[in-house]
Amino acid sequence: MSAPAFILRGADSGARIGTLETTRGTVDTPVFMPVATQGSVKALDPADLRGMGARLLLGNTYHLYLRPGVELVRAFGGIHRFMAWDGPTLTDSGGFQGFSLERLRKVRERGILFKSHLDGSEHEFTPEAVVAHEEALGADFIMPLDVCEPAGADRSAVEASLRRTLRWARRSLSARSRGGQALFGIVQGGVFGDLREMSARGTVALGFPGYAIGGLSVGEPKSEMYDMVELTAALLPSDRPRYLMGVGSPEDLVECVARGIDMFDCVLPTRIARNGALFTQDGRVNVGAARFRTTAGPIDEDCDCYTCSAFSTAYLHHLFRAKELLAYRLATIHNLRFVLRLMERMREAAIAGEFASFRRAFAQRFTPPDEGVRREQKRKWLAAVRRSG
Amino acid sequence: MSAPAFILRGADSGARIGTLETTRGTVDTPVFMPVATQGSVKALDPADLRGMGARLLLGNTYHLYLRPGVELVRAFGGIHRFMAWDGPTLTDSGGFQGFSLERLRKVRERGILFKSHLDGSEHEFTPEAVVAHEEALGADFIMPLDVCEPAGADRSAVEASLRRTLRWARRSLSARSRGGQALFGIVQGGVFGDLREMSARGTVALGFPGYAIGGLSVGEPKSEMYDMVELTAALLPSDRPRYLMGVGSPEDLVECVARGIDMFDCVLPTRIARNGALFTQDGRVNVGAARFRTTAGPIDEDCDCYTCSAFSTAYLHHLFRAKELLAYRLATIHNLRFVLRLMERMREAAIAGEFASFRRAFAQRFTPPDEGVRREQKRKWLAAVRRSG
Repeated sequence: MSAPAFILRGADSGARIGTLETTRGTVDTPVFMPVATQGSVKALDPADLRGMGARLLLGNTYHLYLRPGVELVRAFGGIHRFMAWDGPTLTDSGGFQGFSLERLRKVRERGILFKSHLDGSEHEFTPEAVVAHEEALGADFIMPLDVCEPAGADRSAVEASLRRTLRWARRSLSARSRGGQALFGIVQGGVFGDLREMSARGTVALGFPGYAIGGLSVGEPKSEMYDMVELTAALLPSDRPRYLMGVGSPEDLVECVARGIDMFDCVLPTRIARNGALFTQDGRVNVGAARFRTTAGPIDEDCDCYTCSAFSTAYLHHLFRAKELLAYRLATIHNLRFVLRLMERMREAAIAGEFASFRRAFAQRFTPPDEGVRREQKRKWLAAVRRSG
Repeated sequence: MSAPAFILRGADSGARIGTLETTRGTVDTPVFMPVATQGSVKALDPADLRGMGARLLLGNTYHLYLRPGVELVRAFGGIHRFMAWDGPTLTDSGGFQGFSLERLRKVRERGILFKSHLDGSEHEFTPEAVVAHEEALGADFIMPLDVCEPAGADRSAVEASLRRTLRWARRSLSARSRGGQALFGIVQGGVFGDLREMSARGTVALGFPGYAIGGLSVGEPKSEMYDMVELTAALLPSDRPRYLMGVGSPEDLVECVARGIDMFDCVLPTRIARNGALFTQDGRVNVGAARFRTTAGPIDEDCDCYTCSAFSTAYLHHLFRAKELLAYRLATIHNLRFVLRLMERMREAAIAGEFASFRRAFAQRFTPPDEGVRREQKRKWLAAVRRSG
């Protein structure tokens, strides 16, 4: 089985158009990857995902290692067959959990010692072990173990972490025992431009088929995040895909496509959907709010998702108020389709040479949450992840 | 709009074959109605239900009256359009909640005084008010307000309740203000044969287009339930549909079809599915049990549902262990399809003149839970309903 390849097909005003060629199908980029942390995109099934245009899903090695176990997934023919998804997949390494599960881990040169968030049992994730787990899971794209620092970490800690990430990247490359998978390098460096540069140059020198940008959207101001993305992307080879990890609000997707990113993943669209926060062309709305009790139209007049095609906003409001399980599925379908369609529109605009005007029109119409609100939500989410994995 | 009609097309060894003709389509009987208490079959959408062969859904007047409110549903074109279900529907009256919400109601001759299980507010359900609410909801089949007694109630209480149910039935008939809906009579009488007879004769004398048998499966032994069904069904006119309320385990469906029942509803298949209890040809299994951790095949080799077609038992086991929302949907799809298919098979067997052998083969293979276990589950469920509506 040949490893996935990237073909850059064009660019327009910073946005790149390309394809990821995998044995499980071609994926147009820029692409948003719905997150199936434990082998399931919360509340959705593979037919839902296929139907809404999802092409590439993300699983998490740390979670799948703990439950159901990588050997079980291997015995079932890999993560694709286990979750009945016939398209390509990517697995994250668990490096982010080495950051987020603060009280449950110890980071050493050898690797990360975890206490399971499920039962407190101890596990060691070395770069070599993670590659072995990811080979067992069998995703098309795999991420090496890396070290991530929180927003506000001091320069010396960030530098130490990026240097360790580089050493681990080298060990990960050496640890591979099979083909057919694209192992990406991960650029760290926090919000320090010179450290980002050091990390990017070091990682590129190792030679990966794709590059991820990690350690962003962890609580830093949005403008710093955009600056780091722009600076880092410019240091990466243009013929390799660039994956910005953990970023996926509509406004960030547009701004980071404009800075040359090809791949994204984020739990935000699915997570906020389950709280009733739904995307519209104008921004987020909370469908549980009293003002939607009698709204006959869909949540977003412009949306072509199953939820907006079949159900009134008032019905969705009712489902959330009544805590009906269907609420979570319909809301998730909507938010994910919104984001996937945004990616489609960006590709179309860039192909037509109209990306700059698309970006301007989007920014004029779509109002993101207040920056303070946004950072508070991020803080709460990280705290929740720290508690429960 | 003309009211639904029933056509009895044949019978075999006690089982009746017929059709319910409604302006929203024809429904083959015997039929099982999935329960959409609050306007949603828990975890499923209308496409799921249509795809698995559901043809007639049940909503609850008490719940829909409290939330979202009958006037809102009316403004949206009725329960069908509100929940985006284009097939026929039936609404229960809230009489059962007058029984189950023990501490939250007072039953008087005028009607039932409820305290809302949501916010404690007071509401009166008279027979007339219930008909008005059901006319607003607009279901094809509607049930009058009745009085139900718990298993073990003494004879005098049961007799008083059935006499009141008869008076309320007369008031319900007089209260109708529109056509297009079939208002059923409800036979009560607990486990007393002579009281069942008194109730059946009195209800039939009032002249309804269909008859329900209420007050069973509330904790009495299974054999008494079957006896009462048999005795009551024999007293009902053969050209009218017979609806056994709140009964829907596979073994009860077979035994009560054999006693001439045409319509069933029950939360059991959907409720136990969310606990991981799934039907197989041999009985119930708990998919969360450790023995299913590595099972490659579907939960039931013989099943044609989406869940069994697409997913391994091990994956379903994983989803339940990981508390993934998808678990509840996939399990519900399976159990409902199992029950709907059982109805299809009974119809086919009866049409072929082979119902008796079908019933025998089913009873030989399918092992119901132990009677003690079953009654304990019923008791727990009723206790839960009492707490939360």
